[in-house]
Amino acid sequence: MSDTARADPRVLPMPDLSGSFPGPFPASAYADDIERHAAEWLGTYALVGPERRRSALADITGQGVARTFPTADREGLFLCAELFVWLAAFDDAHGEAAGARDPARLARTIAGCVRLIAGHDEPPGAPGPFGAALRDLLARFGARATPLQYLRLTGHLRDTLFGILWEAHHIDSAEHITLSDYRAMRPHTVFVRTLVATAEAALGYELPESDRSSEPVRELESAVADLAGWINDLASYAKETARGGPSALTLPALLMREHGCDLDEAFRRASRMCERRSAVAAARIAELSAAEGPLSDHARALKSIACSYLWHTGHPRYQVADASSGP
Amino acid sequence: MSDTARADPRVLPMPDLSGSFPGPFPASAYADDIERHAAEWLGTYALVGPERRRSALADITGQGVARTFPTADREGLFLCAELFVWLAAFDDAHGEAAGARDPARLARTIAGCVRLIAGHDEPPGAPGPFGAALRDLLARFGARATPLQYLRLTGHLRDTLFGILWEAHHIDSAEHITLSDYRAMRPHTVFVRTLVATAEAALGYELPESDRSSEPVRELESAVADLAGWINDLASYAKETARGGPSALTLPALLMREHGCDLDEAFRRASRMCERRSAVAAARIAELSAAEGPLSDHARALKSIACSYLWHTGHPRYQVADASSGP
Repeated sequence: MSDTARADPRVLPMPDLSGSFPGPFPASAYADDIERHAAEWLGTYALVGPERRRSALADITGQGVARTFPTADREGLFLCAELFVWLAAFDDAHGEAAGARDPARLARTIAGCVRLIAGHDEPPGAPGPFGAALRDLLARFGARATPLQYLRLTGHLRDTLFGILWEAHHIDSAEHITLSDYRAMRPHTVFVRTLVATAEAALGYELPESDRSSEPVRELESAVADLAGWINDLASYAKETARGGPSALTLPALLMREHGCDLDEAFRRASRMCERRSAVAAARIAELSAAEGPLSDHARALKSIACSYLWHTGHPRYQVADASSGP
Repeated sequence: MSDTARADPRVLPMPDLSGSFPGPFPASAYADDIERHAAEWLGTYALVGPERRRSALADITGQGVARTFPTADREGLFLCAELFVWLAAFDDAHGEAAGARDPARLARTIAGCVRLIAGHDEPPGAPGPFGAALRDLLARFGARATPLQYLRLTGHLRDTLFGILWEAHHIDSAEHITLSDYRAMRPHTVFVRTLVATAEAALGYELPESDRSSEPVRELESAVADLAGWINDLASYAKETARGGPSALTLPALLMREHGCDLDEAFRRASRMCERRSAVAAARIAELSAAEGPLSDHARALKSIACSYLWHTGHPRYQVADASSGP
């Protein structure tokens, strides 16, 4: 194999996760409803311009969220899907390249979101399409979630918005970002922590705090969080390359730098990392699913969340859709 | 009066808030203990270099927090004071001028805090002095607060850190910041929202969500939040001028721009704004203090929070201390 062929992302070593998450991944019967509702919602708030891009985003997110929470009710699914199209569209419009060009502007846009999330009486100003849509989402989550669930969700939403700003600051120059820094922030920028925070409200269970802070739950959440970001990085590498070069702020690039290795070796290392985290997650899911009550509900939610990220990265439309980060 | 004299901050019109908050402001008998404990804590974590600056910060914060929560127990007072010296020292070391010089670096530093606040299992890396101190604060709040109180506090702590980054992006060029933008973010950068969020854990009451979302409570919190930032801006104007020019990101500067007026008129307007918000706060405090239980506790907490900001801006040491934002 020539060096050129070895650098071709299509033949790079990819993780084999079929042992941990064998599939097929069950989907909600409401999948098409979710997709239709999300497309309409995107149109109502005018978050994404061209109809073609709106459809592509609603398609992948709707079908993805149908796999994230296959047993959730329709309203819960609509709400989670719409939160995710909001995040993906926000990232596309204000984060990434636009954010990197003008981080101060992105900080101002996020400030407009923070005032809504914090929920104080400070004057709302003119919220714009993303503000208006966020207000709708927050009201719907507020009506559905318990106060604890709502605060947990809004905490993670703040982290995701901060993550988008952090990414904008480093997407073009990652030399100050260590692998450890990246590992801590990547779950936010791939939205998985926020998605985990929606699970209880979507599925109608409430995990006791003692379970949440237990080692098995923490390890499970952390393994799924790592996995979601890393497989997204590997799967999107080809697309990013085709778009004119992947960001330096992606797992393979950071591994190449950290280990002074080539892309092929970085993919091999990343694949092993994914397989290890996948095995940890699957073992914890098996262990916790055997319990009764909310712990078991939570383990199943984490399993389907992991599956939806796997499904997403394997979807052929992923290669052309605009939402590179959503499930 | 010549134009020069009119622009002298020492003779600028200041608000008269003695009708709404007449003073004297009661202080905890533990005031000196708080100051001593905060100074030791600052030394333990090496957050502030020179001993003189450590003492000045511990002094103003310790005596201030003794007025913020005059009836709280010692541990609660230590904790709130240490959270506030942390915020003031963080802002001084990483925000303001340092943050404005290199916002990407500030974003990385905040990312290290976010990973601790979010409390996930992502690897902690080397947390540094501020990370180690924050970890101590979070553990102590976690042990003292209910889960709701903890999540509310950590939500506001995130907003404050984001506010510090937002400020760093605009402190040298505020042309894109409207008065409404500023009004929404200023409560975070003056730490008052975070301070309000500590009240329940410090004083041992729990406000029902229905009370928290009621119009009187929202208006009271918003009035105190405005007042805290605005009086700080007016009081610090002289100090900032002496330091080589106040930031454009301060109420008088924004009012001059918004109304095309001179500094004297901006101070007159700002003073009227402060007096109006002060009257709103005092009326709501009187109304809610007449209630029974946590609503009354909360009204009294908001009153003493407002008083501590007033005390702080009137303190002679304020003019020379390094912590321009803490209570």
